[in-house]
Amino acid sequence: MSDKALAYAAGKQAQHLEHLKELIRIPSISGMSVHHPDVRRAAEWLANHLKTTIGFGNARVVEGVALPLVYAERIIDPKKPTVLVYGHFDVQPIDPIELWNTAPFEPTLVGDSLYARGAVDDKGPMLAALKALESLLATDGLHLNIKILLEGEEESGSESISAYVSTHPAELACDYVLILDTGMVDKDIPTITHSLRGMTYVEITAHGAKGDLHSGGYGGIAPNPLQALAWVLADLKGRDGHINLPGLYEMLRPLTPTDKAILDRQSVERGPAMLAAAGLQSFPGEQQYSAMERMTSRPTLEVHGIIGGFIGEGSKTVIPAEAKAKVSLRLAPGQESVKVYELLKKRVLALAPDGVTMDVVWLNGGEPLLLPLDAPVLQIAAQAYGAEFSAPVEFVRGGGSIPVAALFDTKLHAPSVMLGFGLADDNVHAPNEKFHLPYYYTAIRSCIRFLSKLGA
Amino acid sequence: MSDKALAYAAGKQAQHLEHLKELIRIPSISGMSVHHPDVRRAAEWLANHLKTTIGFGNARVVEGVALPLVYAERIIDPKKPTVLVYGHFDVQPIDPIELWNTAPFEPTLVGDSLYARGAVDDKGPMLAALKALESLLATDGLHLNIKILLEGEEESGSESISAYVSTHPAELACDYVLILDTGMVDKDIPTITHSLRGMTYVEITAHGAKGDLHSGGYGGIAPNPLQALAWVLADLKGRDGHINLPGLYEMLRPLTPTDKAILDRQSVERGPAMLAAAGLQSFPGEQQYSAMERMTSRPTLEVHGIIGGFIGEGSKTVIPAEAKAKVSLRLAPGQESVKVYELLKKRVLALAPDGVTMDVVWLNGGEPLLLPLDAPVLQIAAQAYGAEFSAPVEFVRGGGSIPVAALFDTKLHAPSVMLGFGLADDNVHAPNEKFHLPYYYTAIRSCIRFLSKLGA
Repeated sequence: MSDKALAYAAGKQAQHLEHLKELIRIPSISGMSVHHPDVRRAAEWLANHLKTTIGFGNARVVEGVALPLVYAERIIDPKKPTVLVYGHFDVQPIDPIELWNTAPFEPTLVGDSLYARGAVDDKGPMLAALKALESLLATDGLHLNIKILLEGEEESGSESISAYVSTHPAELACDYVLILDTGMVDKDIPTITHSLRGMTYVEITAHGAKGDLHSGGYGGIAPNPLQALAWVLADLKGRDGHINLPGLYEMLRPLTPTDKAILDRQSVERGPAMLAAAGLQSFPGEQQYSAMERMTSRPTLEVHGIIGGFIGEGSKTVIPAEAKAKVSLRLAPGQESVKVYELLKKRVLALAPDGVTMDVVWLNGGEPLLLPLDAPVLQIAAQAYGAEFSAPVEFVRGGGSIPVAALFDTKLHAPSVMLGFGLADDNVHAPNEKFHLPYYYTAIRSCIRFLSKLGA
Repeated sequence: MSDKALAYAAGKQAQHLEHLKELIRIPSISGMSVHHPDVRRAAEWLANHLKTTIGFGNARVVEGVALPLVYAERIIDPKKPTVLVYGHFDVQPIDPIELWNTAPFEPTLVGDSLYARGAVDDKGPMLAALKALESLLATDGLHLNIKILLEGEEESGSESISAYVSTHPAELACDYVLILDTGMVDKDIPTITHSLRGMTYVEITAHGAKGDLHSGGYGGIAPNPLQALAWVLADLKGRDGHINLPGLYEMLRPLTPTDKAILDRQSVERGPAMLAAAGLQSFPGEQQYSAMERMTSRPTLEVHGIIGGFIGEGSKTVIPAEAKAKVSLRLAPGQESVKVYELLKKRVLALAPDGVTMDVVWLNGGEPLLLPLDAPVLQIAAQAYGAEFSAPVEFVRGGGSIPVAALFDTKLHAPSVMLGFGLADDNVHAPNEKFHLPYYYTAIRSCIRFLSKLGA
């Protein structure tokens, strides 16, 4: 039932490319206030394009607490599933500009690669999803409910969409979210990200004397907050990679044998390249688990920075009054960020040595995500998307977080279906970003197939 | 046999004060290159003063590798003891200038306090030692050999004197060094510093992956150099204050029962004030030793700073490729800085966790010093100096280092006799530095008595 839509998309490739180029030419860098008018222009362009070309007459720019969002919807039948299509129209800055081979905001096709800032992150994949909607509406029709929510702050904190989703759960209510903003494990390997880790990010402060001291006058008797942090951090995580936080591992949702087998296989396949990329001989830590299991489905505790004392050149003998550590735990499915924060805080306070008081302040966090492999929607997505490739769909668990996916999960209780069209060498967030252009059309077709099947 | 000299000094007080004021008016700030001509002027003033007023016809300015030194000598009999008189004529900067109540380089007497930058550190005490020589030469004569070596870089690294002493050990050969540049434990308590700690200051670098990684992509599998430093630092020093460096404590020279009794008494007397000054309830660490023993006669290992990763505001999830820790050990008598460095390096390399390589680089160091309480020269000094006070002489071990004293000990094998005339509230290195002026004359008399007795 998607043949007409697929034919429509095939006939419109040149036009769909032109539309993408138009959008790319708007330098919508959300991280630079001088470009905020461009972010707004991109929002207006999209709202207008949804109205006039895609077929969503009610599309509108929605004012956010910071930058604008774009919203549109087409509700045909409350009994049909509702899919929320998400994408972001803002882009990263272009520095260092001298490393670009082409003008960053003039999309330039070299072979199959369309070079431009935002080409793959996320204007190309985002517009592909909309072009799938256009193709269906122009031909076979849309047989499910669609909501579209696009943001212009993904590269700078997603403040507006976070506020909007939190305050509009009824308007945004949906069964699934469709996100085209992830990558592929390799070229021509269709890749669905079905799990992400959550995070608990804290700052631990150790307080010693009321002011900085000198080790000539107090060395050997005064508490040293940096040493105290070393004791606490060494206690929190052992050399075997085990995190000493009673209750932490009990929260973990166990992997199915299938999950585990996939991760084991991926560790064998991807481990050597990951080692080489990092310049490492081996991965230290929990040797009883495969690398990919540890990287995606086990919690990790990492120290990101330690603040305090003397860090200039040469030697000063200060015993600082205070020192801070930036520490995060990545959380695997089943682990709740606030509960982990409470475990961590309790443990750190208990580990504080004599003469040192400790504070643990929540900085940031989010929940892990998991769309189980046997979820019907995932099977439908895999079938639709996989039809475009000769290799079987690869299901990956991500080690990082996609905050907006966590947001949809937490606030709307809707799982995100994440179809990947980015390649490892696409230079995301770097000079010479590109999009493998054939995947623009593949993405359109994949979404046509997915939405057709889901509405069938 | 010092009566005439003492009478001379008594009669010359007004003139000696005028000479001190002249010297103070030269703003010889060695840490500011704009004042380097003033440092030279101070050197020239002193060389001239030694020639024309003190009685050292051969006094001269010696060019140093950086700023000039002043040298003079009077050798009467190789069989008599030789005393090297040391002092420094450079001063600290005066910032923040707005906190001074009087002009920093216009010596101003308020009650018994002579306010000026350099008044107590070290122009007043240094000139007092020279005025003792003047008093003796003008009356009873000097019955021992005197060498005078004054520097103008004590406040900025002592580069010139370090080079000069290292290359002129024969010219500077002496039995004792007389230094008037230390403090008193309290007003009217004559205080001799007879021991100082040495130091081994290193930078420990932990290397992990070849570049910074992201904990979303590598958290749980990559080595984390900050975590590695935490493990190493936690291993190096236990919560009980014990330093886990095999061989370290074996080098310690044991305290005599007298030493220990003094430190125990001083801990009772001075401990509460030290706690209050630091805003602490107690001193954590080696509870089996008194606070003053730990602070002066036990080694300490202190972390002064940790460099690496993200230390800005908010949360970034970097796993740094490299992290460094600035670490020092203060060393107690018996412990040699280079041997301790070797122990430390060996231990740190052994403690490096899987996937992390460690470097330990020597940054700075020096030897501990000890002039035993029963050393005859110390007894003579105590008798001479103590005659000026009603309270008995207090012998203190310092927890810090005086690099130049370590230099004389190492290069000339001459112990330093350090008579203190500074008070805790003299604002050394701070605005409103002052010198308790009666101690200028006390210092002159103490040195007259000491040098007379030593030459007798």
